[in-house]
Amino acid sequence: MTIEDVKKEIRDIQDFPSKGIVFKDLTTVFKNAQYIQFLSDMLYNQYKDYGITKVIGIESRGFIMGAILSEKLNAGFIPVRKKGKLPAESYEMEYQLEYGSAIIEMHKDALDENDVVLIHDDLLATGGTLAASISLVKILGVKKIYCNTIVELTALHGRKLIESDVEFISLIKY
Amino acid sequence: MTIEDVKKEIRDIQDFPSKGIVFKDLTTVFKNAQYIQFLSDMLYNQYKDYGITKVIGIESRGFIMGAILSEKLNAGFIPVRKKGKLPAESYEMEYQLEYGSAIIEMHKDALDENDVVLIHDDLLATGGTLAASISLVKILGVKKIYCNTIVELTALHGRKLIESDVEFISLIKY
Repeated sequence: MTIEDVKKEIRDIQDFPSKGIVFKDLTTVFKNAQYIQFLSDMLYNQYKDYGITKVIGIESRGFIMGAILSEKLNAGFIPVRKKGKLPAESYEMEYQLEYGSAIIEMHKDALDENDVVLIHDDLLATGGTLAASISLVKILGVKKIYCNTIVELTALHGRKLIESDVEFISLIKY
Repeated sequence: MTIEDVKKEIRDIQDFPSKGIVFKDLTTVFKNAQYIQFLSDMLYNQYKDYGITKVIGIESRGFIMGAILSEKLNAGFIPVRKKGKLPAESYEMEYQLEYGSAIIEMHKDALDENDVVLIHDDLLATGGTLAASISLVKILGVKKIYCNTIVELTALHGRKLIESDVEFISLIKY
């Protein structure tokens, strides 16, 4: 199996979530055990020697591979969620969407200065959510931040929003 | 480590998500790698000989341990989500809340009649979401359905909504 085989399984959904958008649907990948094994092994091998102590998953699709990686890397799992979903004291970060803005949150006690953090989301589009998640982690002041997504939509240049001290990789590019 | 050690890590949040409710916060468990290892090993050992082919995680907190279990059991992962979040053709199921109702969905191509399914959520309260998820799986007609949650609030009798042909277990009871 190669990463190209996984790419072929990703389903294009026209006009979702709104008119004119072609949504990259990864449920067709995750429903297949072989692809979960392949992707999680690939990411595990990428990060296994980096001393990752916490994996951060971005709500909701980023929870899937994020949680799997936390278990494989023997790290803790931390959720970044939309405003109002986390029950305890949280830091919040606002970011711009095409129309309007959104706010994400992370618990104040999620991380400490000794953590080495891997932020995971399923897909990088304009990069707003990932950049805001990095800003949240930086408030808490960790040792080092790594980031990854399974898919990257390169035409949207989301990568430009990621600061140079953060190492970002994606597995599948469009 | 015992399951009682995990129970001690669960944080009570007063008046979340609304006045009078004491929310059981599992983020304090998941942030600790040792507890992720302990819980996922316990559930893996419970189900490893059952021939599970798909693990279903209920949005959003059920994605965390649900995804980990899918990887450990070498099964596919299927999300059950709130209405409007899944991109492809879905079955939907309405269920009653204390005030009003909610709708959850699952992709029509998520399962087939040869699947042995494990439905996972973090917590069983009144049981509405879990019972609706079981109904969705039954539309698709699988071989066998197992269910689990990490926490069960026994005073709410959610277990009563789970039909007798579905095997349900929870790890921590209040």
